Parts: sequence; structure tokens; C-alpha cells
Amino acid sequence: MSLLSDLEWRYATKKMNGVPVPQEKVDIILEAARLAPTSSGLQPFEILVITNQALKEQILPIANNQSQIVDASHVLVFAAWDDLDAQRINDMFLHTTRERGLPDDRMDSYKNMLLSVYGAKTAEENFQAAARQAYIAFGIAIAAAAEQRVDATPMEGFNAAALDELLNLKEKGLRSVTLLPLGYRDESGDWLAPMKKVRKPKDQFITELN
Amino acid sequence: MSLLSDLEWRYATKKMNGVPVPQEKVDIILEAARLAPTSSGLQPFEILVITNQALKEQILPIANNQSQIVDASHVLVFAAWDDLDAQRINDMFLHTTRERGLPDDRMDSYKNMLLSVYGAKTAEENFQAAARQAYIAFGIAIAAAAEQRVDATPMEGFNAAALDELLNLKEKGLRSVTLLPLGYRDESGDWLAPMKKVRKPKDQFITELN
Repeated sequence: MSLLSDLEWRYATKKMNGVPVPQEKVDIILEAARLAPTSSGLQPFEILVITNQALKEQILPIANNQSQIVDASHVLVFAAWDDLDAQRINDMFLHTTRERGLPDDRMDSYKNMLLSVYGAKTAEENFQAAARQAYIAFGIAIAAAAEQRVDATPMEGFNAAALDELLNLKEKGLRSVTLLPLGYRDESGDWLAPMKKVRKPKDQFITELN
Repeated sequence: MSLLSDLEWRYATKKMNGVPVPQEKVDIILEAARLAPTSSGLQPFEILVITNQALKEQILPIANNQSQIVDASHVLVFAAWDDLDAQRINDMFLHTTRERGLPDDRMDSYKNMLLSVYGAKTAEENFQAAARQAYIAFGIAIAAAAEQRVDATPMEGFNAAALDELLNLKEKGLRSVTLLPLGYRDESGDWLAPMKKVRKPKDQFITELN
């Protein structure tokens, strides 16, 4: 097996069959997302894992009634920090230096540079930067699901403000950015399953500057 | 081998040793990025692969003099579309339907919805959406490099406007969003190499709603 074969195997599953994904596979996918790199190691996002069926039913209309929300056993919500504020940055650097057995102030010059850069930006700008970091982990979680032969549907088509309200994300300082339902494909009921995977040809995607 | 062990192996390499990455490994990394999923399959970004040493020397000051730019054998530039405009969307859907042997108009109702949604937004908003898609592929390319035991440095710290000008990206309708130098670690010269990989504890990263 290889990442390329995993990526060839996967597709944005449109119809799932309701079979639950074993928790050990979900844990591997979540661990891959946790290990994803982020800018300055801030990991400015969290993941909510929704298995509660009643809650999934409430999310369904918020996500344009896409059936994977209720047919997936686990719906991952990637939610980015609403700002890159000083307390969060300070906390993350303190955690990092202590985990590495370094003096608390060892990374202060770098940290202070970050505090200055992000402190000069609006919360919205910082949220956008945080959201991009969440997308790195989103990509890696998609790859991890494929490796585990778990189907997944990368999903941006939902009302983020409504979901944030339903999940009380605002009071946690979070804003939802993407969803990733995890389950198993219902091949006979999924119009996309038999379709060829289409990508831009290499010569329109890659430019070599030698 | 597994994706988790690949992710444990990798780190944001701070010092590379100049040994070139075999082209076959670079091709696998690029293919992984090409296979990455994107919203509506638009793939609204391209990758420039820079091996020209003189060009890398010119990029060096634009990227805060981070030495990986010149010590990597290949520098990948992820560059997103500057807008999600009608022509690009039409082209991508035409490509997709033809690759699938469908009538050209088979996806028109969905395509027209997208044209309406993106047509109502500013170029800047659409660029931001395109940039997020590039980050999905960026994450997957990072995982692919790790699988190939190729070191990589996810890099946002550069002057995008200056790089766009150097690489004439504006006239291609592109804007650079991230860099990924590929090479091999210089373990003795890299302060980060011996450091523990630090991530947020699971209980601060994941919330289960059962």
C-alpha cells in the first residue's frame, strides 16, 4: 500500500450505508490530524467528533441535507480559533518549551515576534490564517481515512454560522471551517462511485522552472 | 509503514544538506498533490517546481533568508487562482464531463449554482477559498514527502507579493500561498532535529459529542 494507491481508492462519497467505523480507525484518523504540521506549531484549531444521532439530525439541514451527515457514524467538525490571541500563543509556547525540557523563556524572541505580527491583525485575518492550518490537517485526515479504507466526504457546503451556534462554538472561541463525515460507501446508491476520478492533467498543474 | 509513523518521522526541517531528491520521489509527491480533493473538484491552484539554483538564490531574501530555499533540491510553490472566474469553472466542468464520457451539459445545474455563488463574491474572497484548497494538497504533499522519507519544510514565511512578481504569477492569474522545499536534513546542523515533537494533548484537541 502507498499514499498514492490510498488517494486513488478514495472519493468524495455521496452515499454512505450506515455501517459504523470502528473507533480504533477513527482514533488513527484523529491522531494523523493531531500530528499535522501547523504554522509555528500553534495548532490553532480543534476537532469535534459527533456520533450522537440526534445531533447529526440537527446538523443535516445546516449542511444542505447531505445524507452523509446522518449515514456516517462519525462526523468530524474542524473548527479554527476565532483569533490568534496572546493568551493562546503564550500557552502553546509554554507547553512546547516545557515538553522539551527548555527554560520557559527559551523561545521568547520568536514568540514575541509572533505576538507582534498577529497582534497587529484583525481577529478575522487571524481566523483566516488559523483556518488554513486546519485545512492542512483536513488534508492529512482525508489521507488517513483512505489509508484505513474508511470513506469520507470532505464537506464545505454548510452554514458555518448556524453550526457554530448549534455547537456553542463561539463561546469556545472557535468557528467551524470544514466537515468530514466518516463511514462506508453505499456503492449501489452512490452516483459518483462508478465515475472516473478526474484531475487536471499534469501539464496544466505543474510548471517546472529548471 | 503507516501514515502515523510517517508523520512521527517528519519535522519542519530547518537545515538541509544539499543532497538532491531523486526525481521519481518528487514525482510521487506532486502526484499526491494532484490527487488531493478540492471543493467541487475545481483544483483551483497550481504548483511550480523550482530546481534552478540561481532562481532559488533570488527567492532566498524573499523568504526571510531561510536556508532550506537554497539547500533543498526542489522548492515547490503552491499558487492559488486569483479568482474563481466563470471561464476556469466552465473549463474544469467541460474537462470533467468529457473525461467521464458524459454530455457536456450533464453537470450544468450544479455548475450554474457555482457560477452564481462565486460570481457574487469578490476576487479576493474567491482567492481565499482557492487558497484553502491549495492547503489540502499542501497537507497531502507533506504526508507524501514523509512517506518517501524526503524532508520538507512547510513554509509560510515569505513575501508573497514579491514572489508573485519574481515568478510572473500575476499574469498567470495565480498568487503564491505556501512553499515546500524538499531535500534531506542536515541532522548535526539542525537545532530542531533533536527536539521532541510537541502537539496539543488529545483532550485539548478533540471533543466527543456522543
